[in-house]
Amino acid sequence: MSPSAIQTQDVDLTAAAVNRKEEAPAAPALAQLDASRLTYTYTTSPRAVPDEAVANAGTETVCTDHMIVADWNVASGWTAPRLVPYGPLSLMPTASCLHYATECFEGLKVYRGYDGKLRTFRVDKNSARMRMSAARISLPVFEPEQLSKLIIALLEVDGSRWLPRDKPGNYLYIRPTMIGTAPQLGVASPREAMLYIIITYLPRLDSPVGGMRLHTSPEDMIRAWVGGFGYAKVGANYGPSLMATADARRRGFHQILWLYGPDGECTEAGASNFFVVWKRKSDGKTELITAPLDDKLILDGVNRRSVLDLARERLAGEIEITERKYTIAELIEADAEGRLLESFASGTAYFICPISQVHHRGRDINIPMGPDGQPGKITSTIKGWMGDIMYGRTEHEWAILINEKQ
Amino acid sequence: MSPSAIQTQDVDLTAAAVNRKEEAPAAPALAQLDASRLTYTYTTSPRAVPDEAVANAGTETVCTDHMIVADWNVASGWTAPRLVPYGPLSLMPTASCLHYATECFEGLKVYRGYDGKLRTFRVDKNSARMRMSAARISLPVFEPEQLSKLIIALLEVDGSRWLPRDKPGNYLYIRPTMIGTAPQLGVASPREAMLYIIITYLPRLDSPVGGMRLHTSPEDMIRAWVGGFGYAKVGANYGPSLMATADARRRGFHQILWLYGPDGECTEAGASNFFVVWKRKSDGKTELITAPLDDKLILDGVNRRSVLDLARERLAGEIEITERKYTIAELIEADAEGRLLESFASGTAYFICPISQVHHRGRDINIPMGPDGQPGKITSTIKGWMGDIMYGRTEHEWAILINEKQ
Repeated sequence: MSPSAIQTQDVDLTAAAVNRKEEAPAAPALAQLDASRLTYTYTTSPRAVPDEAVANAGTETVCTDHMIVADWNVASGWTAPRLVPYGPLSLMPTASCLHYATECFEGLKVYRGYDGKLRTFRVDKNSARMRMSAARISLPVFEPEQLSKLIIALLEVDGSRWLPRDKPGNYLYIRPTMIGTAPQLGVASPREAMLYIIITYLPRLDSPVGGMRLHTSPEDMIRAWVGGFGYAKVGANYGPSLMATADARRRGFHQILWLYGPDGECTEAGASNFFVVWKRKSDGKTELITAPLDDKLILDGVNRRSVLDLARERLAGEIEITERKYTIAELIEADAEGRLLESFASGTAYFICPISQVHHRGRDINIPMGPDGQPGKITSTIKGWMGDIMYGRTEHEWAILINEKQ
Repeated sequence: MSPSAIQTQDVDLTAAAVNRKEEAPAAPALAQLDASRLTYTYTTSPRAVPDEAVANAGTETVCTDHMIVADWNVASGWTAPRLVPYGPLSLMPTASCLHYATECFEGLKVYRGYDGKLRTFRVDKNSARMRMSAARISLPVFEPEQLSKLIIALLEVDGSRWLPRDKPGNYLYIRPTMIGTAPQLGVASPREAMLYIIITYLPRLDSPVGGMRLHTSPEDMIRAWVGGFGYAKVGANYGPSLMATADARRRGFHQILWLYGPDGECTEAGASNFFVVWKRKSDGKTELITAPLDDKLILDGVNRRSVLDLARERLAGEIEITERKYTIAELIEADAEGRLLESFASGTAYFICPISQVHHRGRDINIPMGPDGQPGKITSTIKGWMGDIMYGRTEHEWAILINEKQ
């Protein structure tokens, strides 16, 4: 066996296998996920559309009238996708996803613009990430464009009624999900799976009073690790983190700042990406910094990428934009030296959410906010640009117009 | 804040929180899981009991006629458990377990003894571990004895017909499962959950022809890590491992030998514990060695514990019994020096399964087996003792007699 073959098979087996699975041409006999085969069965009892505040007041997540479902099995591939009334799923008690966390998902939003139009945002990025996540968790893959088309088809049906034109500035949350459904207790890749897409309400989380307050992760708890799956949007990244988050909340914090390794590298804030703006120690320049993707610890967030893209395009020369590992000790040092300027979390649920404090081992790191409890200048500027694209105040290729059916 | 308070809250938050949750007295207003409240609704269409070979030939897991279900919610606690006909579960598409892997399970067996009696094995250990796993994944806890009683109640109903007295030496597999059912997409501890217990067929996995062959884990994939949840039986430990296992199987191996850390510590074999018998380097004594529990990387297996208990009780003086970290390099060295004697995996599914080969980075480590493809002497001896207890050839406190209803 040549050294390079050993390298591929034994050392990077997982990464290689993900790539192989993502890139492999499907067996010709297997039906592919095909949005053009979508069938429509409309609800005969459409529900009243609740006010956003009412919908978000309860503990149950409120969904729209319809969902899209497609089934897969290893012998025949994908069924034709179906748009059907929203309702419960029937799963056998032996279903793979209930035992082995064979599940992955995505999150994106649909926005009612100030020009009355309906838009979603960079759906291609979510679809591509969902394929990667599916491959990582041993679920079937698909052509990302087909998932994007299905998401858009659901928005075309439910978007008009659930995001009325007379309420611009509102949004709904889209949750594509894939689960292993095979009634099979053996620890093996599921032979059956289900893809479904739902649209839900989601509380506005981007403006907590006084800014978001983070508590660093305890030493005996790591969210993700090199060689793990922190970069994939799989269920296994979430359930195990709930206990630390609940503990932080009991002590008055919003989320965990997940540290990694003996040096305490700053990775993610809750389930969002974490950004800091500071005066750089080496040369005093203003720098926007976030953790890098290369060791696969953190999620390749769509908003993270958008923040970096916009900052590089529009703030170059004004600030430095850096993706590198940085530690909680650097944060503490910057605080002590008065170099901390701003911080924010970016994600679909939290959008761009200003962070005002990080608590670490009994010490508070206070981070400046803007006047009147508003985000600082750079945070506000980037958040404004993103919102302008999402709500149609500026034209941009990232915004995908939805062709409403009514 | 005193240093000890910081220690508890910030450094060992997770371990402390698991302990707190496991040990906290339940709020008096909340109903506890209570096996004495079990209600019985029998199936009106009992299925034909298949032959073991037929039942295990398909890809679907065959279950018995009944299951036990109990629901929990954060406001009122546990409902009375119900024994009902086996059938599908209805879950909302927003159910927590489908997105965030809020799920845990157990696995144990029920045995038809050669004396005609029905027994299960150390069910108290499984019930206690299930409570710990539930706490770790932010699901509700319960008194372990109540779960044991429910498991036994289900065996009392389905055991007689599904493990007929005229077929001694057969077994079925019991799968207690808990899932977060709350229809709630926020990343938070589920406000609703379901506990269910099913009984299934499971293929015999303890005697692969030529012994079990392991492939070491690739460098870019780690099953569990210090600060993670490798010690808990939660779904998040399984789905992410399927890809590496599938890749190893494509290359002719049965399972992955999971290595950990820069030195390649040997941790688990597939989802089983991993044992080696060798001549110890330091003094040439025969040693039975397995990885320790203290860094919480591996599962505290019931069979692992039973192997160690029996070996310490009955083989002391004859062999050394050691729980310590040991590496793949030590295995290679022992192979080169002709000191490797035996190896086996222990677990509920694989029972005591002899291992004949470990493949690591292009190199085969061959491990002796007994004559005629049988396990080696120590493996055979321990396996025999365990089987004798399970199938009633010897009386032992670990075997729990089931009081059959018919």
